[in-house]
This record gives sequence, structure tokens and C-alpha cells, in this order.
Amino acid sequence: MFSVKYLIYFSRQLLYNGHMKRILLTIEYDGANYSGWQKQPNVKTIQGEIEHAIETSIGQTVEVFGSGRTDAGVHALAQKAHFDLNVPVPVSKLPDILNNVLPPDIAIKDAQQVPDDFHARFSQKKKIYRYKIYNSPNKNAFLANRAAQIKQQLDVVCMQDIAQYLVGEHDFRGFCSAQTCTENFIRTIFSIDVARDGDFIKIDVCGNGFLYNMVRIIVGTLVDFSLGKLTKDDVLLALKTGDRARAGQTMPPQGLYLKDAIYQI
Amino acid sequence: MFSVKYLIYFSRQLLYNGHMKRILLTIEYDGANYSGWQKQPNVKTIQGEIEHAIETSIGQTVEVFGSGRTDAGVHALAQKAHFDLNVPVPVSKLPDILNNVLPPDIAIKDAQQVPDDFHARFSQKKKIYRYKIYNSPNKNAFLANRAAQIKQQLDVVCMQDIAQYLVGEHDFRGFCSAQTCTENFIRTIFSIDVARDGDFIKIDVCGNGFLYNMVRIIVGTLVDFSLGKLTKDDVLLALKTGDRARAGQTMPPQGLYLKDAIYQI
Repeated sequence: MFSVKYLIYFSRQLLYNGHMKRILLTIEYDGANYSGWQKQPNVKTIQGEIEHAIETSIGQTVEVFGSGRTDAGVHALAQKAHFDLNVPVPVSKLPDILNNVLPPDIAIKDAQQVPDDFHARFSQKKKIYRYKIYNSPNKNAFLANRAAQIKQQLDVVCMQDIAQYLVGEHDFRGFCSAQTCTENFIRTIFSIDVARDGDFIKIDVCGNGFLYNMVRIIVGTLVDFSLGKLTKDDVLLALKTGDRARAGQTMPPQGLYLKDAIYQI
Repeated sequence: MFSVKYLIYFSRQLLYNGHMKRILLTIEYDGANYSGWQKQPNVKTIQGEIEHAIETSIGQTVEVFGSGRTDAGVHALAQKAHFDLNVPVPVSKLPDILNNVLPPDIAIKDAQQVPDDFHARFSQKKKIYRYKIYNSPNKNAFLANRAAQIKQQLDVVCMQDIAQYLVGEHDFRGFCSAQTCTENFIRTIFSIDVARDGDFIKIDVCGNGFLYNMVRIIVGTLVDFSLGKLTKDDVLLALKTGDRARAGQTMPPQGLYLKDAIYQI
């Protein structure tokens, strides 16, 4: 049995099939009020809001494919996601059309047509995450959902020093959550850049892919090393043996920003 | 009938009555997730959270008196509030003690002892509000609850020009909400400063007191004048006749920050 909605949808698909365009969206969001990227029943998610916005604004029921999931409370400066546009809407108008119906804490920054075989997740070459630490003993009400606070003074030189051992191709099973569902723990980290900006420390981690909680555990390892809670040997052993207990704490989600997903289109 | 809680409270009061200290708190808060300052049943308010924090951390049931109310969604850089401390806690330790139990979006920045006849509302000489406008055509997900967006380009020189007519002692009945409960509409505005900082416009309004929605309507008047929706004559007539319809729009709450309440102690 098909509902009227689906009959309309399939008729439209037939009509515009020749005009199908694969669209890549660049999306900024404040993740504080969402249960993460991935659509789930009965909770607000970024994917759910975007699919709903596409349906209500241009009348097309779609699945939007993200470059990857982000957890509850995690933000994005530039999440990427693709979908197939089957209605005759100019691509350049899509950001304004969607922004008008999306909640104020989700913004479409760009829309562009990509080849039909492009996939936001499988075509990506690199992904960059930023982690933001508020390194101050003072409480700041406006950073509650925007950064992780570490009260003790951190040493960015020390953090950058230990980071170099994580750069390269490694088995990162010691640097992911026990909930990680994969058989291949090998990932390549291209760079880790640690920089202080006043009371803030920004850590940019660029890699070809990340395991569950991997960025938050890498950052927690740099922090715990700087605080003297871990030695260089602990970190090297966490890499070598894959023993999660040797690596650092899992930093909280609110400091994490998906900064970019990079493709060679 | 007294509950055990109140018996303990009154015994403590008797014991420490000689040690009663009136305390002035300086409070920063992100108002996005609160139904304003004033305590109300069944909703989260700033006053309610602070009174609850005092009760759970130092075991004293108190009423906290703010310098004034802020509406739902309005923020504070430095709200001031007093209460009477009846337990032997060092005043200098109060910020840390309260911050540990307060939610992360409310921060006690300072606590100091003030004279017993000091009152956070009635002793104040000046109050400063800041209004933050994001003056850009682009959507920004991270400003959803932190600024009001005006997409058309605003002219700060023009806004500063019209602002001068509002400075001074005036009857501001044309610049307040119809819900204002007062018989005296006369207030003195000491200064209005309009400044651009990149895509942001910051408007600081300093006065001896403000009517309900007065700052948001003053800012709306500057905005509507800059956009050509109001003439100088409209603004002067709004002042002279008290006709609310001659003044500008009421700007939304999320751009408003209580910047300071000033006393001569």
C-alpha cells in the first residue's frame, strides 16, 4: 500500500529523473540542543532537521548522507552531506530556501552540485576536527556548551611534543571507545596542531578517518600528559599495545567541532 | 506548624544572628535556557537556581534580591544580587562554593560584604545594558541565542545621531511595553554608545532605571531609523506624545545583556 504522499513523491521522481542533481551541502551547527547528527525516533537530530527542512521547503522526501556522525553536543563548523535533488530548484538558492525553515542553530553555508557517484562519506579524503579547551580557573557561563574547561594551566609546547607520536599510520584501538564497531583500527593522522589563543587552546586534528571518540581521547591524552597524569611511555604503550587504559581521558563533547571534510571532486 | 527544615533554619539564624553578613553577588549568565531572572513555579529561573545553590551548598534557605529582573532569553555579564549570609562561611570562598553546585551556564564572578542597609535594587545608581546585533546577511548557527540578526546593512553614525535625542531625562511611556506597571514613566538616560565591530553592532545604554522592554525598544528605534522605517520626527513625537506606535520595533531578547548595575557603596 502506498500513501498519497509517496505516490506524489514517485510521480515527481519520474518527472524529474532526467534532472536529478546530486547536491553537496556545507552545514554549520551548534550541537548543544541536538541528540547528534544521526536521525533517531522521538529526538531532535541534525540529519532529521535537515531532511524535514528539505521536505517542507521543496516538497521532496529525501535521505541526507553525512560525511560522518557527530555525537550529542558536538558542533560543526563545516559538516558535509549529500542528497539527490529531484525538483527544479536552482542550486544557488538552496541555502536561503533551507535556512528559512531550519532552526536558527543550524545553518546551510553552501550548496553545490557534485558528480552522481559522489558520496559525502565514502568520497572523503581527509577530515579535520577542532577541539576547544577553555584553560582558565574562572567559570564562564557563555562557554558552558562551547568548550571544555581545564582549570590547571596547560603547556601547549608539551602537548605538541607528545602529539607528534600519534601522527602517522597507527592502530588506534587504544584511542577509541569500547563501543567502536569495526575490525580495522588502522587510521592515518596527517597532523595535530596545538595552539594557545589567550585563555583558549585549540587543537586541530586532521586524519583520513576517525574511530568512535578517537579525537576526544587523543585530546584527553595530550591534556593528561601536560598535567603529568601520563608519561611518554604510557602514550607509546597505548599506541603499541592498544591498551585503552594507557591513553588519556575522553574529553567531553561540547569542546568538539567538526571543522571540515575534504574531497577531491 | 514548622517543618524540621525551618526549625533548623531558625536555630541557625539565632545562633549566627550576630554574624549576619549582607552579601553582594556579581553573576554572569547565559539566559537561553531560563525563563528569566525571577523565581516562578515549575520553570527554571536564574534566581531560583541561585537560591537552590545556596541552600544545597551552605544549607541556608534565603531569598536573593536582584538589581532587577531580566526576561526569558536575556543574558547578564554582571547581574548584581544581595542576600543575608547567616552561616560562618568565608565570603571570599562563596564564588567557588556556589559555582560548584550551579549549572555551567550560571557563574558567580564575585562576592563581597556590603552594609546591612544595602539593597541590590534600591541602592543602585546606574544600570548598563548592552544590545548585540549581528549585522550580516549570512546565517550563523552559533549566534542563534547570542545576538539579534539584522540582514540589511545598518549605519552606526546614523544610529548614534538619533540616539542623542533619547539621552537625558524624559517621559519614556512611548518606549515601553503596554505591560509596564508603573505610574512614573520618567527616566534618565546618561548615554547611548553605538559601535561597530566587524559584523557586530554593540549598543550600550546607561540609565538610572529602565521601563519594561525599554532598552529593546530604544534599540529597535535606532535600527528602524537606520533602515528608513522611522523619521527623526517620528522619534521626537514618540518622546513628546508618548505614542508607542511612533517608536521602533521591540528587538528580540537574545541580543540583550545586562552589563552592569552600579552602586556607590
